[in-house]
Amino acid sequence: MLNRRIAEILRSGKPDESLLVQGWVRTKRELKGFAFIEINDGSSLANLQVVINEDVPEYETTIKNLNTGAAIEVAGVLVASQGKGQRIELKAEKLKLYGEADPETYPLQKKRHSFEFLRTIGHLRSRTNSFGAVFRVRNACSAAIHQFFQERGFLWVHTPIITASDCEGAGELFNVTSLDLKNIPRTENQAIDYSQDFFGKPTYLTVSGQLEAEVMAMAFGNVYTFGPTFRAENSNTSRHLAEFWMVEPEMAFCDLEGDMDLAEAFLKYIFEYVLAKCPEDMEFFNQRIDNSVLATAENIINNQFERLTYTDAIKLLEKADVKFDYPVSWGLDLQSEHERYLAEQLFKKPVIVTDYPAQIKAFYMRLSDDEKTVRAMDILAPKIGEIIGGSQREERLDVLERRVIAQGMKPEDLWWYLDLRRYGTVPHAGFGLGFERLVQFMTGMGNIRDVIPFPRTPQNAEF
Amino acid sequence: MLNRRIAEILRSGKPDESLLVQGWVRTKRELKGFAFIEINDGSSLANLQVVINEDVPEYETTIKNLNTGAAIEVAGVLVASQGKGQRIELKAEKLKLYGEADPETYPLQKKRHSFEFLRTIGHLRSRTNSFGAVFRVRNACSAAIHQFFQERGFLWVHTPIITASDCEGAGELFNVTSLDLKNIPRTENQAIDYSQDFFGKPTYLTVSGQLEAEVMAMAFGNVYTFGPTFRAENSNTSRHLAEFWMVEPEMAFCDLEGDMDLAEAFLKYIFEYVLAKCPEDMEFFNQRIDNSVLATAENIINNQFERLTYTDAIKLLEKADVKFDYPVSWGLDLQSEHERYLAEQLFKKPVIVTDYPAQIKAFYMRLSDDEKTVRAMDILAPKIGEIIGGSQREERLDVLERRVIAQGMKPEDLWWYLDLRRYGTVPHAGFGLGFERLVQFMTGMGNIRDVIPFPRTPQNAEF
Repeated sequence: MLNRRIAEILRSGKPDESLLVQGWVRTKRELKGFAFIEINDGSSLANLQVVINEDVPEYETTIKNLNTGAAIEVAGVLVASQGKGQRIELKAEKLKLYGEADPETYPLQKKRHSFEFLRTIGHLRSRTNSFGAVFRVRNACSAAIHQFFQERGFLWVHTPIITASDCEGAGELFNVTSLDLKNIPRTENQAIDYSQDFFGKPTYLTVSGQLEAEVMAMAFGNVYTFGPTFRAENSNTSRHLAEFWMVEPEMAFCDLEGDMDLAEAFLKYIFEYVLAKCPEDMEFFNQRIDNSVLATAENIINNQFERLTYTDAIKLLEKADVKFDYPVSWGLDLQSEHERYLAEQLFKKPVIVTDYPAQIKAFYMRLSDDEKTVRAMDILAPKIGEIIGGSQREERLDVLERRVIAQGMKPEDLWWYLDLRRYGTVPHAGFGLGFERLVQFMTGMGNIRDVIPFPRTPQNAEF
Repeated sequence: MLNRRIAEILRSGKPDESLLVQGWVRTKRELKGFAFIEINDGSSLANLQVVINEDVPEYETTIKNLNTGAAIEVAGVLVASQGKGQRIELKAEKLKLYGEADPETYPLQKKRHSFEFLRTIGHLRSRTNSFGAVFRVRNACSAAIHQFFQERGFLWVHTPIITASDCEGAGELFNVTSLDLKNIPRTENQAIDYSQDFFGKPTYLTVSGQLEAEVMAMAFGNVYTFGPTFRAENSNTSRHLAEFWMVEPEMAFCDLEGDMDLAEAFLKYIFEYVLAKCPEDMEFFNQRIDNSVLATAENIINNQFERLTYTDAIKLLEKADVKFDYPVSWGLDLQSEHERYLAEQLFKKPVIVTDYPAQIKAFYMRLSDDEKTVRAMDILAPKIGEIIGGSQREERLDVLERRVIAQGMKPEDLWWYLDLRRYGTVPHAGFGLGFERLVQFMTGMGNIRDVIPFPRTPQNAEF
């Protein structure tokens, strides 16, 4: 008998079809001589309703154990449902109980649980409606990202997680070492004896794959990374993770305009893809989590993003009839409140701010002829603020060396990165997207810990 | 003018089409009054031949600088090629030199370089034919993996990189810490004061996402991981990396037979996909790297994999008319020479060996009724040996607890993993594929350091 998944049955199952379903009980309603069981197999938000009559041979022995969380297999025939809420239901003919879930101890009973509580049972929370929807949407976002880039001939490149360079100056790095922490070996002059460490020198968890992605772009033209990155930042907020996934495309022969075009097409594509693949989950978020989620998605998809320079943005902010907590002045970075004002109040759609002051941006961004600004861009979206940050890269060896030195770094530590400018350099550009921020944005989930299966945050590496 | 990539031009470009090409010079041949330039943009192994006549305005000033490695842009018209080796070539009308590459210092000149040498210039080696082909095939393998699973409704799940559990007992773990290694804080009794570490306890880089994938399979049915994993094993061999990518599908309601069926379909799918997407690169490997590569791919695709038990495999090895270096005896693990004998000599196709002795396999594998073997399977392929290892998992709480304890682990450290058996447990199974081994297998590359962009090995974390 054909084993089918519930999403597919609910979509296209027809009365009189015989099939086999496997999943977990969500609810049970016992009536006289029969019972309704709602089962879920993770393929969709909606459950399949199963009707089990007492004529089913296993009814008497198993019905008392078909509690929330139990794993069962049902063979039966689809019938048109007479109840409300579903088109079709399964009339059981044969029943198998795989694993029980004791209602006295199983933590997921049929009531609403707080997200805080569910974080303490991270190994079970995916069995709830909310987290089921989150991780289906997360998967759809991931698949959309790969499909977008693969369709356009970009290569997925796997940049290293363990790195010996801390040259982005992010500062908050995790150490990676095979040394025995209880007994760190020392040299004669009491320095750490890194010759005994696995890599023979200090190593860290990467904060970005960009520099290595640039290497690959200089050979393949268009590439992207999609992998984990790390920040040992002691921030206990709803927007920070110590371990998070990042997407970083990099394009040779591309300037900031091409970069913005790609980023805008990319965001629209992902939202369209997820709306098409997970309409039911997205509807759920809109109803239960944040009732602006669908409108925001439509806003992204249907609007041409506004593009303006940082300098113009500052002028608009200075004129704004709003009292900001943080000062607005040319040379200062935009704060979240400023970004949200631009996207939500003023333009009411995504805004791309370009050409930021050089001193508040990274050394690798291309210096403009004014020598004051760099060809950077941030995409600010309504409801969340900055979602993408990118730039055209400095491709001129002399300018890059100058900026490396100005920021207190040693050119020799970046010898290979500088070599890219020495041999066959080209204008190139790229951007970074924090993947969990995107999933937060898409689902309306308030806390970033609730959009990654096993969040890593200060004092928490459980599961 | 339309900017087109070389792979596409070579495939479908037609005479008289006007277009723009951007890439890097591979070779230059100057003749009287004109020159042939071969340019490559990373989209294909083959170069596009460009003919530049001295009538082109930029000819005189730039021709001397169009050396190997230089980045250029050419606008022109396609013409049928009169030379051998290409169907079509580009007649230049306009020329732009972006970045030179000084022939005195640029390390990649038009001669054969050893892979050892190229590893020292990891930031440039992707610009060679061999590494261009390797990373295009690597990307195609990656895309195939996602497509295979997404088509079948599997969710891609991102399991954590930083983990507090070392319960797989692999032993060779990298420490992850935010403590200052120069000055590790101590408690009163001189133990490490982990309360000051980022996560409040010892943490490591993961060796596998399987246990967390099982969590997700118990909610979504079918899931897979595809991400980096780590081993601090001091092995300086051509088959070991400290950082490598792994694919780990996990399926609820699945036994070992279903697991083997999936694994076999999976391998065939990937090989078919790569042959279809990268025929030219695969031909290159077959000609230049290992002349059995295409035959091996066909062998995988066209043969039903042989399935036999470990016990039967031992019997066959004992009868074999071959002198092995390592002993063959029930209870000992199969060595590479035994695996290769089975796959290459005896069956001449991939072999799946099942039901290994419990004592040589991991605690989470399902114990069979004989209490001596577990429902494990390894896929052994001609030329490479073990390529996939998997098992049906132990879903019975009591048996799993017994095995955890027998292996010297504490059940309380695995509380959440055991909970999966306490609440709605089901038969489930999965496997692991070492991604770089697969790419090695596919390309015939002898050293695993040459199939990952930036290899991490003992004493080496360069770039």
